[in-house]
Amino acid sequence: MHFKDFSDLAAVDQLQQVAGTPCDLTRPGLLSADRFADYRMSSCGFELLYATQRLDDVVLDGLQALADEAELVDKFCAMKQGAVMNRIEGYESEERRVLHTACRDIFREQPGYPEAAAQARQQLAALQSFLQDLEDGTIVNHKGESFTTMVQVGIGGSDLGPRALCLALTAYARPNRAVRFIANVDPDDAAAVLAGLDLSRTLVNVVSKSGTTLETLTNEQLVRTAYEKAGLDPASHILAVTGEGSPMDDPERYLASFYMYDYIGGRYSATSMVGAVTLGFLLGYDRILDLLAGAHAMDQAAEERDIRNNMPLMMALTGIWNHNFLGLPTLAVLPYSQALIRFPAHLQQCDMESNGKFMTRQGNPVRWQTGPVVWGEPGTNGQHAFYQLLHQGTEIVPAEFIGFRHSQYGHDLEVEGSTSQQKLIANMLAQSLALALGRSHENPNRYFPGNRPNSILLADRLTPYSMGALLALYEHRIVFQGFCWNINSFDQEGVQLGKVLATRILAEIIHQDRNGEVTSANDSPEKDLLRQAAVSGRE
Amino acid sequence: MHFKDFSDLAAVDQLQQVAGTPCDLTRPGLLSADRFADYRMSSCGFELLYATQRLDDVVLDGLQALADEAELVDKFCAMKQGAVMNRIEGYESEERRVLHTACRDIFREQPGYPEAAAQARQQLAALQSFLQDLEDGTIVNHKGESFTTMVQVGIGGSDLGPRALCLALTAYARPNRAVRFIANVDPDDAAAVLAGLDLSRTLVNVVSKSGTTLETLTNEQLVRTAYEKAGLDPASHILAVTGEGSPMDDPERYLASFYMYDYIGGRYSATSMVGAVTLGFLLGYDRILDLLAGAHAMDQAAEERDIRNNMPLMMALTGIWNHNFLGLPTLAVLPYSQALIRFPAHLQQCDMESNGKFMTRQGNPVRWQTGPVVWGEPGTNGQHAFYQLLHQGTEIVPAEFIGFRHSQYGHDLEVEGSTSQQKLIANMLAQSLALALGRSHENPNRYFPGNRPNSILLADRLTPYSMGALLALYEHRIVFQGFCWNINSFDQEGVQLGKVLATRILAEIIHQDRNGEVTSANDSPEKDLLRQAAVSGRE
Repeated sequence: MHFKDFSDLAAVDQLQQVAGTPCDLTRPGLLSADRFADYRMSSCGFELLYATQRLDDVVLDGLQALADEAELVDKFCAMKQGAVMNRIEGYESEERRVLHTACRDIFREQPGYPEAAAQARQQLAALQSFLQDLEDGTIVNHKGESFTTMVQVGIGGSDLGPRALCLALTAYARPNRAVRFIANVDPDDAAAVLAGLDLSRTLVNVVSKSGTTLETLTNEQLVRTAYEKAGLDPASHILAVTGEGSPMDDPERYLASFYMYDYIGGRYSATSMVGAVTLGFLLGYDRILDLLAGAHAMDQAAEERDIRNNMPLMMALTGIWNHNFLGLPTLAVLPYSQALIRFPAHLQQCDMESNGKFMTRQGNPVRWQTGPVVWGEPGTNGQHAFYQLLHQGTEIVPAEFIGFRHSQYGHDLEVEGSTSQQKLIANMLAQSLALALGRSHENPNRYFPGNRPNSILLADRLTPYSMGALLALYEHRIVFQGFCWNINSFDQEGVQLGKVLATRILAEIIHQDRNGEVTSANDSPEKDLLRQAAVSGRE
Repeated sequence: MHFKDFSDLAAVDQLQQVAGTPCDLTRPGLLSADRFADYRMSSCGFELLYATQRLDDVVLDGLQALADEAELVDKFCAMKQGAVMNRIEGYESEERRVLHTACRDIFREQPGYPEAAAQARQQLAALQSFLQDLEDGTIVNHKGESFTTMVQVGIGGSDLGPRALCLALTAYARPNRAVRFIANVDPDDAAAVLAGLDLSRTLVNVVSKSGTTLETLTNEQLVRTAYEKAGLDPASHILAVTGEGSPMDDPERYLASFYMYDYIGGRYSATSMVGAVTLGFLLGYDRILDLLAGAHAMDQAAEERDIRNNMPLMMALTGIWNHNFLGLPTLAVLPYSQALIRFPAHLQQCDMESNGKFMTRQGNPVRWQTGPVVWGEPGTNGQHAFYQLLHQGTEIVPAEFIGFRHSQYGHDLEVEGSTSQQKLIANMLAQSLALALGRSHENPNRYFPGNRPNSILLADRLTPYSMGALLALYEHRIVFQGFCWNINSFDQEGVQLGKVLATRILAEIIHQDRNGEVTSANDSPEKDLLRQAAVSGRE
């Protein structure tokens, strides 16, 4: 496998030559029936409509050449088969395999990396057994009552993905089961969540891969104290999901323990036990299998070499076209589904933590743009908020719409001749067209320039299966882009400096708090800032 | 008052000349005790620390000259006194005054625009009386029970601001009072909210300034149907907040009606009845007055001409420095407070809908960048998510941190020698420094380039008063920037085209649904897209 710099690829040169005059979406007749039919693909229950991207067959051929020259699919397949993709050549780095796909590689006889798939099966079996014990009354509280709530305590990858999925699938929740989340070290986060709970009927799922995450351990301690104050035994209520051998791997302190492995990055861990335990409590075991089946189907579909038949690859490359060739620095993800309200926040992490990098896999500074700023909110809400800028602002924002033909609950009503679901989907399609086509008008303030690139993802309904496919689709889009930019999408060295400085500032706060004065050593920016901030953090 | 184009201002020229070599925050000794002390201001209980912006006294003098030449404070004062600021000269436009400040101009004898202040007082008196009736049992349900929940039905400005404020202040909620929100036309939004409620003890507050908002009227109908199905009289449960004379201004259909006026834009309406009714239900009337007092204090402080003493003006101008002179297209708002979880979403609307414009107040295309993409999530959560890109990405993102010295609930615990609140604030300060200073390292992947501009807003505690001040601070920052860019920050013509196309597509969906075929007229992009999307929206 060759890892070439992005700017050294011949296909990049070729694309650069056509990028100055991208396809004009406002040209009358361009958005024709043929174009809509041609620039469309299907995969795992989703259709991707990309006629409203600023590209044509020349660009698509160039993007195919880019995918081929950068060996994106080869690298993806190697990743699934256990290549050590999380590394920087020649420097100290994590040196790990990248095998989140193994979490769902449980449906075929010859998985991509059998050892990891076996561990996934093992953990799933343990989860199934635990859920069954809850079901049949083997595990109950001290009064013999069933548990009705699970609180997941985790942060970053141990929070955003699982939270987004739980919110997305609440419509399928089992009766009398609810989930909550505590992430922030802000003590008000735990206080607000715990205020509304009957602790005696609550399980707490503490999730930290390293078993050393400051926020999570602090919140675990807050929760344990709350149980003790309520006269309850924490060890009968608290579960752990952690790496084998981590400081949290101590089954005596927990009602149950589940494992994740060092080949699963936090932001890619939603289909591991990091997400599956709380999701399993909420939805039941069978629906977890549906979620995994959807993700696995997309894992397989991403091995296709033709970009017109590989949805995550197509999304990766159109993203690169918009970002590197058309020069657009951000990306809006706009689900027309209230259930996906926190999916953009999950993607924001998964994408920006993966591809917000400025060193190549060989440790050289990149000479091209890497990951964009990813953000978004559900439609139609956003239409009444930031869409003004999308249509008429000076910043051009590529948009990815996500919609479903049917609602989850099916509680709908016809008002003025149409259902809410019909209004919802009509609005999504309308926004895609409005951004692309624009509109001329004699009042300059009512003129729309158009040529705002976007695409639409459509499926029948948001279910565990389609949610799994959607999650994997975005995971792979991100990974393909990282390979193309020749960066390591699997580490996060950029979070370390803040931790170092926080430790120093915290030590100074503690010192000042105890002694009423700054430490005796010389001034430093930390002490100077702290003096101006006048912070102690004591109540 | 003169409205000059941004690019014609002499101060812009001068700033452009120094923008090529902005202050290097990584230079040893630059971030000194003196700099931290000098680049700091206080207002209405907040400190703004801006030593970590890439500017020096020359730039600050240039920004002061820019504020003076563009007459930003004069325009702001004129706005508060009723100037018709919502207009485009020479073209059909809304031609309205902009008087959201009047909603809180109730504390002095000579308000800026007495007629609007009198209307604010009148509405507040009506709200006080309504809340008192709930309190003393004058208004109860059909069984004589008190109401425990209020559901606000609204979208955009009638949702984001009120929702952000309710979440921010839930720690101060009255016993047995809770609020929920329905915004999206997605039928799953209402279904999920209604699923968890006892309708008999719930009030519904329907908010639409125009009384014609599609999503809101549809959701009102869904809610009315739910009441009828439950055998309850909707008119005994549903309130209205709307413009006087709007189609919703029909007190017979509602338990109570409150008014807003056409001089209050939706995205600036959180301190009008649009926010006050639901907040009043949650917090009680006196706390609404605290919120208004905080906002009013900031309204007054924003009249100061010296940018070093006018916090919203300073934030507006440093934002312009970063956006127009340093070329940074986005802005991250990062509250270190879980209670502010939706405040960035509110700002995203308020900022991007106000300043996502490309025509001047005279109807000419702008020749400079207007509003940035605004986004953000609470810390420390974000540190485990997108901060990787902030520190080591190729996109440089200016950041605004917001923190508080004390928590709201005060339920804290010492773990490893420090409280959670101390950890929280130490992390915020550390991130500010890490972004600015960077760090050299022999391992290129552990090198941090620094020079990421940012600022810190600090107050003692998030209370109704400080929340009011914070809200107004950002409102005015946005308005000052709009004046500086010579755009109309108060209209939203950019949302119209999507509505027109949605209506056409919806008509086509209804036709196809009824007749099983497309309408007979010629093809159009709408029909072609609809054919490929294969949408009907029927269950």
